[in-house]
Amino acid sequence: MTAVGTGRFGAVLNRIEKETAELRERGCPADYIPGLAGADIRRFGMAVAEPDGTVYGVGDWRTPFSTQSITKVFALALALSLEGEQIWRNLGREPSGNPFNSLVQLEYENGVPRNPFINAGALVVTDRLQSLTGDAAGQVRDLLRAESGNPAIDFVPEIAASEAAHGDRNAALAHFMASYGTIANPVPGLLAAYFRQCSIEASCADLALGASFLARRGVREDGSALLTPSQAKQVNAVMLTCGTYDAAGEFAYRVGLPGKSGVGGGIIAVVPGVCTLCVWSPGLDRRGNSVAGVSALDRFTTLTGLSVF
Amino acid sequence: MTAVGTGRFGAVLNRIEKETAELRERGCPADYIPGLAGADIRRFGMAVAEPDGTVYGVGDWRTPFSTQSITKVFALALALSLEGEQIWRNLGREPSGNPFNSLVQLEYENGVPRNPFINAGALVVTDRLQSLTGDAAGQVRDLLRAESGNPAIDFVPEIAASEAAHGDRNAALAHFMASYGTIANPVPGLLAAYFRQCSIEASCADLALGASFLARRGVREDGSALLTPSQAKQVNAVMLTCGTYDAAGEFAYRVGLPGKSGVGGGIIAVVPGVCTLCVWSPGLDRRGNSVAGVSALDRFTTLTGLSVF
Amino acid sequence: MTAVGTGRFGAVLNRIEKETAELRERGCPADYIPGLAGADIRRFGMAVAEPDGTVYGVGDWRTPFSTQSITKVFALALALSLEGEQIWRNLGREPSGNPFNSLVQLEYENGVPRNPFINAGALVVTDRLQSLTGDAAGQVRDLLRAESGNPAIDFVPEIAASEAAHGDRNAALAHFMASYGTIANPVPGLLAAYFRQCSIEASCADLALGASFLARRGVREDGSALLTPSQAKQVNAVMLTCGTYDAAGEFAYRVGLPGKSGVGGGIIAVVPGVCTLCVWSPGLDRRGNSVAGVSALDRFTTLTGLSVF
Amino acid sequence: MTAVGTGRFGAVLNRIEKETAELRERGCPADYIPGLAGADIRRFGMAVAEPDGTVYGVGDWRTPFSTQSITKVFALALALSLEGEQIWRNLGREPSGNPFNSLVQLEYENGVPRNPFINAGALVVTDRLQSLTGDAAGQVRDLLRAESGNPAIDFVPEIAASEAAHGDRNAALAHFMASYGTIANPVPGLLAAYFRQCSIEASCADLALGASFLARRGVREDGSALLTPSQAKQVNAVMLTCGTYDAAGEFAYRVGLPGKSGVGGGIIAVVPGVCTLCVWSPGLDRRGNSVAGVSALDRFTTLTGLSVF
Repeated sequence: MTAVGTGRFGAVLNRIEKETAELRERGCPADYIPGLAGADIRRFGMAVAEPDGTVYGVGDWRTPFSTQSITKVFALALALSLEGEQIWRNLGREPSGNPFNSLVQLEYENGVPRNPFINAGALVVTDRLQSLTGDAAGQVRDLLRAESGNPAIDFVPEIAASEAAHGDRNAALAHFMASYGTIANPVPGLLAAYFRQCSIEASCADLALGASFLARRGVREDGSALLTPSQAKQVNAVMLTCGTYDAAGEFAYRVGLPGKSGVGGGIIAVVPGVCTLCVWSPGLDRRGNSVAGVSALDRFTTLTGLSVF
Repeated sequence: MTAVGTGRFGAVLNRIEKETAELRERGCPADYIPGLAGADIRRFGMAVAEPDGTVYGVGDWRTPFSTQSITKVFALALALSLEGEQIWRNLGREPSGNPFNSLVQLEYENGVPRNPFINAGALVVTDRLQSLTGDAAGQVRDLLRAESGNPAIDFVPEIAASEAAHGDRNAALAHFMASYGTIANPVPGLLAAYFRQCSIEASCADLALGASFLARRGVREDGSALLTPSQAKQVNAVMLTCGTYDAAGEFAYRVGLPGKSGVGGGIIAVVPGVCTLCVWSPGLDRRGNSVAGVSALDRFTTLTGLSVF
Repeated sequence: MTAVGTGRFGAVLNRIEKETAELRERGCPADYIPGLAGADIRRFGMAVAEPDGTVYGVGDWRTPFSTQSITKVFALALALSLEGEQIWRNLGREPSGNPFNSLVQLEYENGVPRNPFINAGALVVTDRLQSLTGDAAGQVRDLLRAESGNPAIDFVPEIAASEAAHGDRNAALAHFMASYGTIANPVPGLLAAYFRQCSIEASCADLALGASFLARRGVREDGSALLTPSQAKQVNAVMLTCGTYDAAGEFAYRVGLPGKSGVGGGIIAVVPGVCTLCVWSPGLDRRGNSVAGVSALDRFTTLTGLSVF
Repeated sequence: MTAVGTGRFGAVLNRIEKETAELRERGCPADYIPGLAGADIRRFGMAVAEPDGTVYGVGDWRTPFSTQSITKVFALALALSLEGEQIWRNLGREPSGNPFNSLVQLEYENGVPRNPFINAGALVVTDRLQSLTGDAAGQVRDLLRAESGNPAIDFVPEIAASEAAHGDRNAALAHFMASYGTIANPVPGLLAAYFRQCSIEASCADLALGASFLARRGVREDGSALLTPSQAKQVNAVMLTCGTYDAAGEFAYRVGLPGKSGVGGGIIAVVPGVCTLCVWSPGLDRRGNSVAGVSALDRFTTLTGLSVF
């Protein structure tokens, strides 16, 4: 059951909205696909979901945006819940130190991606989920719908098509891994599933609620367990060390929370046991993370004293 | 004031000592310098220091061992306390994804080391500390002495000499950074300071107490502040993302605590607000971390439910 | 007009055939596609074509084999003849120092392949030839037919299909370059043309005659100019520095002639003004060059005193 | 016996001097050591030495300049003459595809330099020569003196000192190789020998005569053999594939001769059996080769039709 209200951190959110105002003129929207390039960098929303299902926010917190790489967290959680440690057969969990779509490291490491949050690793996760369920993207969407209580969450075919049309680098990654036997599904179908997964639109409210199981030691909105407590901690650990591309160290240093960003400008973050956060603002820094979003989370941990460290 | 006793985690430590017994036949001691190569891999000690100064442990917890890279944490804390954010001018804080003594990344990134815990980055920290204090190694030793209350902590000249005699790779790193202007002190003197710092011997008890300021939001044993709360959190963040060479992601996944290892077989770890831990066993895995040590910390967080995630 | 006979180097060829006998039990046939994996490594042929069109040989010199990368020389010559220096817009001519199908260098150099004889560079050449003629593979086949006087030279559809079925790494290279805009044709069609080109079967006699224009300063069998004298020298230069994958330096050191190898076990070589050579034996060394073939050419230059140095 | 005159290529040299006039305002002198940074880029000299010992030239062909990396050819020839193929134990002969002072490749290839003309490889050669003779730099100087008939050729201590003062990158390379056991002499002494060798000053006339043994199949000015004909060809092969840093492919393509450049602005080139050339002009392109020098050699092969291809 989802409740909307103004909870424990309402005042903090209002303050953050004001303090990040001038940052919302910095950065650029993702330009590699037309569907994202037109985003207005002055948009800003931030939501907090508490473990009891209360959710509240400021600004555009109920406006759907393109979730992109944030979906990688949900795909990983589903794959972990379905096959446990087996998911790590062809997948590392070390920070990459390279941009999210680099092929260099993949070659030096014989086709095994460094972690599940760089594109190559996310393709491995989607490949497994596709093999296990037959519909990886649908599973991710359905998990988000169930946890947020919002049945309107869905794919955006135009975005998926736009990603496919500009998806040569992901195609290169997928074919490269296929040459090593790292992925099992035929490349075209896998890419289609991956681009559909990335095209999901959801709001800050949806995503904060959607990720609540990570603040609740793996427990879903309905009280069932998606992950064991140990697995929930592990997903948080991977988010902290690998969740923000090659800026993960910086994000841990400044924000100090497990987080995962997407090139649509969204970032989710987890305060284990306390709450989940989602912030959105489309202006990205050169590493692909939302300028105002990182700053808002930085302010949140500074003002509340909450961080994992 | 340091008190020795059997505190909150005494039973857990006893259990861990038993459960890791068979692991203490695995791994190999560091072989790159003669001074370390002869270590007995069956040795094992583990200590917990609580924020009030209570310290207790099991096994060889009071036996001095070669601290090696663990000293990098104390050098970083001292440099941060002396010049704050300035320390990051020529130093990153991203995980490296490469072995601790790699030159490759250094070249691709124009002589700026990825983080303060790979050797290149530690040389930058020691270089700054040397410039700021005139005696980097002495400062690290004195901090450890003061925090642990153990004035016997000291350098081991034979170890420092052995490292110097086998120090071509560190010399290469230092000269390479000098060619970029990343370091300021003459290379021979800098290397001497660095090898002396690494040669410090201390016990699990000493190091758990020595690192207590990281569990106390920067506050030293005498109540004064070495670091601001924010800086203490930042050091913990860098430990979590970069503290165990190219196994940091794995360590976060399994243990879930900020930690820093050394090739002498020691590892320190921090549970913010709760305690600091130090474990020692000389058998190393292929990434240079203590086999029994990592496992002991893994057991600790599993048995106590304590982790940052 | 092609004449078969026993010319100037007949005795040398006979001697080489004997002296390389024991080498024809070394190496392995290419194993990455089934169509090549079954080749008999004891097969051996060698042919010499003199500038007047005389051709002669020893062993299996008239047996067709899979030309593979040897076709890259003919594709480059055609592209050069059609658009001259323009071909170098998105293509380097430096040795790569990496295996023929590496993606690493391609990424560091922003999608511009190092030279026309690594796979990425060959794809760029085929892409241009496809744009300029509409049938890159057909042009290469027709050039070989005309120069050798053998109208039976043709594609082998089973080999092309086998390469396509195992072509993930080439697909990765092509998509990766497409992401940089280095290639213009749609990836699937380009790959089909490239695999067809590589599937051409021809004999040592065919290829020695086919490459004769490189020993004749660019002049074709019919007296017309395919290349200017300067361009013919340039193709020879690229063959010498880049023609044998990451063993080009070794080949220059031992053989001292411009040469180009293929994973079918063939190698062509040019003695400017004197003759062209083609040798074939399917056993490959770990760098993908024919063991007996390299040795036969080494013997040839040692026995005749002919080399460019 | 050395004769000065106007031989077979006198008219060609005069024409080249005129045609490259405007290029002598391009490029920059080497700036990494003060001793070279002040060179006047308008200086230009070019000499031809014929196998009979006749030497002639244009412009500043008798002006001494800093030979730098050109000395690597003479060191390699001496090492080859002393221990033959043994020199290749810890040394490759493949083009590097990377700048002359890169550490990256060295690390990927376990401390074995790619070829004798990158700095790391030249250090290996000097290390061997030092072990074999006790005075590597003196041997190189004496060879140049003997072949050129010029006893005034000598080291320039100020240049050697300047290189040592700015030699951190070479020190890094040497220490790095020492860590792999690739070099045998203590690093400081080896570096001193290497910098002394590089500091030799000689003129175009001296160097064209000095390298004549490479056009004479290994035969020295006095009729004795420095190298076997096979070894002389091998040195020429390595010069062609590796002699001009990461522009070797371009140099082969444009000039088509074995050549070796130095950051002093000199280049030597060999037309086997015909002559040796040396050109000097201090303005360098971004890869460290003389702008006017490369162009002069390009004109020479175009005007004379001489090239190895």
